[in-house]
Amino acid sequence: MFNFNYRNPTHIVFGRDRLSELDSLVPANARVLVLYGGGSVKRFGTLERVLHALGNRTVFEFGGIEANPQYHTLMQAVELVRRESVDFLLAVGGGSVMDGTKFIAVAAPFEGDTSSLLYHGFNPAPATKVLPLGIIATLPATGSEMNPYAVISHNNGKHSLSHAELFPQFSLLDPSLSFSLPPIQVANGVVDAFVHVLEQYATYPVNARVQDRFAEGILRTLIEIGPQTVAEPDNYDARANLMWSATCALNGMLGVGVPMDWTSHMIGHELTALFGIDHAQTLAILLPAVWTERKSQKHAKLLQYAERVWDIHEGDEQSKVLEAIAHTRDFFERLGLKTRLRDYGVARPDIGRVIQALDQHGMHTLSERGDINLDISRRILELAW
Amino acid sequence: MFNFNYRNPTHIVFGRDRLSELDSLVPANARVLVLYGGGSVKRFGTLERVLHALGNRTVFEFGGIEANPQYHTLMQAVELVRRESVDFLLAVGGGSVMDGTKFIAVAAPFEGDTSSLLYHGFNPAPATKVLPLGIIATLPATGSEMNPYAVISHNNGKHSLSHAELFPQFSLLDPSLSFSLPPIQVANGVVDAFVHVLEQYATYPVNARVQDRFAEGILRTLIEIGPQTVAEPDNYDARANLMWSATCALNGMLGVGVPMDWTSHMIGHELTALFGIDHAQTLAILLPAVWTERKSQKHAKLLQYAERVWDIHEGDEQSKVLEAIAHTRDFFERLGLKTRLRDYGVARPDIGRVIQALDQHGMHTLSERGDINLDISRRILELAW
Repeated sequence: MFNFNYRNPTHIVFGRDRLSELDSLVPANARVLVLYGGGSVKRFGTLERVLHALGNRTVFEFGGIEANPQYHTLMQAVELVRRESVDFLLAVGGGSVMDGTKFIAVAAPFEGDTSSLLYHGFNPAPATKVLPLGIIATLPATGSEMNPYAVISHNNGKHSLSHAELFPQFSLLDPSLSFSLPPIQVANGVVDAFVHVLEQYATYPVNARVQDRFAEGILRTLIEIGPQTVAEPDNYDARANLMWSATCALNGMLGVGVPMDWTSHMIGHELTALFGIDHAQTLAILLPAVWTERKSQKHAKLLQYAERVWDIHEGDEQSKVLEAIAHTRDFFERLGLKTRLRDYGVARPDIGRVIQALDQHGMHTLSERGDINLDISRRILELAW
Repeated sequence: MFNFNYRNPTHIVFGRDRLSELDSLVPANARVLVLYGGGSVKRFGTLERVLHALGNRTVFEFGGIEANPQYHTLMQAVELVRRESVDFLLAVGGGSVMDGTKFIAVAAPFEGDTSSLLYHGFNPAPATKVLPLGIIATLPATGSEMNPYAVISHNNGKHSLSHAELFPQFSLLDPSLSFSLPPIQVANGVVDAFVHVLEQYATYPVNARVQDRFAEGILRTLIEIGPQTVAEPDNYDARANLMWSATCALNGMLGVGVPMDWTSHMIGHELTALFGIDHAQTLAILLPAVWTERKSQKHAKLLQYAERVWDIHEGDEQSKVLEAIAHTRDFFERLGLKTRLRDYGVARPDIGRVIQALDQHGMHTLSERGDINLDISRRILELAW
């Protein structure tokens, strides 16, 4: 096991009918900006209940944060925060709204070019002051509700943002708020969480048994309840298990002391930026291809995955690994996500544009060992096509 | 799944050679009290390294905190804290030192009868100010390094103490600091962690799949590495897995959204107070007896435990449960812990004294449903004898 640091101060408020507790979670005299995406939080009455729970506080609203939140959209909220001296941000929505709100939290107090906050990769953004933020999650998927990370779109690229003070003060997770989601968003959420776990797991073994078992536990849970929660949107227990799985998938506990491989995410961000493919769909396309290309480097962990997650106990090691990859692809397909690049209308020659974008964004070496160069990324994309 | 709150801000600093980082973890101008137990932290040089790492800070020492830390011992440290205006506590040791330090953290600033802090059961102690504390763990067992709980001995009873501000600021967990422990203390630690998991798990099902899988994952890890880490004290990987298992067993993640049954702990505290039996040994005695008595109430979870933790797939449900209980007892015995009350020199009529103590301490109803009365506790003790 590697040495590690772990710290996660976010207060999780999980369960039914918790919205009324907002009053005790948001500072009493705060000037609050409530942020949301499209109209669904309005349409389903969530926004109204949030505003009611905030009582007599001074509250502003900013709607219209899009999927893959754009720098220029978010800067309009930054202007509002500065103009109105907002001192608490409250995100109501899914990963895009959470991530966008995190950017606003570092950008609003920042004196300098706010776009420069986005070009530090996995290093912390150079911000000295961060506005406090809270989250009301309506979509179980990204895990942003319990970590200090965000992904922001700028100049046709998706950029990571992190800062030690970007942990939400609280995240209110009421599974029933997700009942009204379209099935494809729920399916995307299952796949997103599933791949979050795997990019912290399918590397090489370092004898980190608790982390491995936790990862396998979330994977098995997602396999058990994934298709069910898509088919039965108002099954509270299934949705609650999805929601807590998604949060635990990326709250840092799985990644402590182990190597990680974010290759599918890094290449996937380019697919979203270039072709507008949903984030989770890019992962469903890429993960099986990354594993097929890297099955010898990842052999030991893929074998463990085959045996412990899919209960594959027959055949030789090689065939177990291949069967596990096939099961994984099939799981994504059963959820309703296509797993080939061509299924999304991408032409084979377009792969060159992806490689160009990776080159331009400095993604010359990926994987847990830094040994996926642009040639190998191209092979992965060919396999994914 | 039940509604829940979860918040755990402790900063974990895990791995080899981390002691030198103390300088950045303890506030620069702190007046520090370093607390420890017997002489082993001196004998093995840990204390010297700690003092060195604290640099030019004003440092006081308080040694001699005993197993099952006593109120009257701890009050001597409280006097020292008050006299010298200590503003940071640094515990170096195992669960007793950690727990004792937590009591000092609430007692030193408390204006009133400090023993009254101990009589609130699982409710928070009525303290308004709590001194910040850090931990250097030398014994993987209690989980106190990442939670806000303590158990303190007073007036021949063991009393729970908790407070939202009692989370350690940081806990430095270096598995190699535990290499010099006597084997019995390591074995005790394995059993303590094992039973911590089980008292949050072996209740009734509430469809909390992630929590169940996490619990089962720690149990399997402890079964895999428990005997090995006792036999091979300087096997770093085994000890690291024990240490992280023990921390995760009681950092709150297993208990969110599920019923808990602390019966073995509650009765066990009386066995320690009356007969001086080590805490973990009381658990090894009681858990199999509690399960034997309660196997119908706990049937579904014990069956799941049999199948998922011990891979018992043959036989009918009843026999699987009995086999799992037998395996559990055998696991404790293989680690070197006796599992019968009579093995520890307790006479059968002494059971009456245990019941009296439970009565006196208000333990008239135990278990996840509050349906273990004193008659049932007596039957459990008879079975444990």
